[in-house]
Amino acid sequence: MNSKAAQDNRSEALVAESLSHIRIVLINTTHPGNIGATARAMKVMGLKSLHLVTPKLFPCAEATARASGADDLLQHAVVHNSLDAALAGCSLVLGTSARLRSLPMPQLDVRMAAERALAEGRPEASGAQDVAVLFGRERYGLTNDEMQRCNQLVHIDTNPEYGSLNLAQAVQVVAYELRMKAIGGAGVELTPPDWVPVDAGQMERLFVHLEETLLQIEFLNPDQPKRLMMRLRRLFNRARPDQNEINILRGILAASQRAAKKREH
Amino acid sequence: MNSKAAQDNRSEALVAESLSHIRIVLINTTHPGNIGATARAMKVMGLKSLHLVTPKLFPCAEATARASGADDLLQHAVVHNSLDAALAGCSLVLGTSARLRSLPMPQLDVRMAAERALAEGRPEASGAQDVAVLFGRERYGLTNDEMQRCNQLVHIDTNPEYGSLNLAQAVQVVAYELRMKAIGGAGVELTPPDWVPVDAGQMERLFVHLEETLLQIEFLNPDQPKRLMMRLRRLFNRARPDQNEINILRGILAASQRAAKKREH
Repeated sequence: MNSKAAQDNRSEALVAESLSHIRIVLINTTHPGNIGATARAMKVMGLKSLHLVTPKLFPCAEATARASGADDLLQHAVVHNSLDAALAGCSLVLGTSARLRSLPMPQLDVRMAAERALAEGRPEASGAQDVAVLFGRERYGLTNDEMQRCNQLVHIDTNPEYGSLNLAQAVQVVAYELRMKAIGGAGVELTPPDWVPVDAGQMERLFVHLEETLLQIEFLNPDQPKRLMMRLRRLFNRARPDQNEINILRGILAASQRAAKKREH
Repeated sequence: MNSKAAQDNRSEALVAESLSHIRIVLINTTHPGNIGATARAMKVMGLKSLHLVTPKLFPCAEATARASGADDLLQHAVVHNSLDAALAGCSLVLGTSARLRSLPMPQLDVRMAAERALAEGRPEASGAQDVAVLFGRERYGLTNDEMQRCNQLVHIDTNPEYGSLNLAQAVQVVAYELRMKAIGGAGVELTPPDWVPVDAGQMERLFVHLEETLLQIEFLNPDQPKRLMMRLRRLFNRARPDQNEINILRGILAASQRAAKKREH
């Protein structure tokens, strides 16, 4: 294993650790395929702990098939006879639900729910236990009684004209936000590994060379170079060429100068 | 309709409007069911504009079945013979990909990509066109050529030991972040007032002209033009030149060609 892969594994171990106290709890799931799809949605985001309350049919070949490589999560899934049993050892219970009109309760969006879930159990000495995230039946969601076991309800904002996220999609979105919180992804742009940043002085030398060349090939008007150079500076400053790219650009300028010079002979 | 529902519809109209310039582009999809599942993942988050480049099998009953109430998106989906055709009218092209090790390009996480996508077209007078978000084949993702049509690549962070998000799941996560940005509505980067966005076809013509010129001034090795052109494409795609800047760059290329041509006399 090369060192980058080893580094990835160490980082992933940390991510998995920070997500390890979070249980995905499916209540009374009708279609075993959805249990498999849930396992897949969880594993891809680094979640491991699947709990099932009175699933209609489990274990089941269809669940294993839909899990597609995430069946280790199915093998370790805990099956309970009651929600009480599934919540033993949990100090925070979040219930996913469509927006309620008849019985309004405080609701979090997924992003804030993820923040609360990750924060539970920090610091470890606080003695906090697991976090349970509840998902109800495919057709009916959670019952009123089940909602009343929740500290907070979690709402995934959807198109009110067509709001039906299926179970695995809802788990996917929640699992994604949990992972985003765990990795600290605040919306970043990742630099490529071969990036060689340049000193501002290099950019100046590039612009000097560029202006020289543009004069030589008679593109720039020597009496009025400023406006065009300003626009070109804006373009290349925005592009943020790295060292390799600057070398290429200056090579192009030099070749252009050579090709033009030959004319003078 | 009660007043809360009416309010929801007005708010949703605003959300849908702010997402309406975003196209989900699926390239060469193998399984029609995934096209249906994509339509569903889109509609639930308020996206409408589905574009398909040479899908293996479409229209298809399986796509309609998996769309589950979102088949209006399938009916309005646009099928193209080429990626060029799908990108006509787009001024920003984002490509989803697993992390690249062999050919690094700048990558955004989904949250930042959503920010850029929503910001394109603000303010409306800027004339920016549609945003295309590209998804590749189920097994192989996007080809290198397709990635080179992208201004930026988008990476969904996943468990390195089990990173395989299926196509519909990837679309779901991206659609979710786009909606989150649309309903949040704060902190976007505004385009400068003199910005004149360009169609993706213009970028292609620039690269053709650039390659011609680099061959002519003997900078490019005619037997091995690809690697260097790839790097230059990466630089200029990232820079996102507007119409004025493209005009300047092509003027420079023309001047360089003239200066070199004179040598031949």
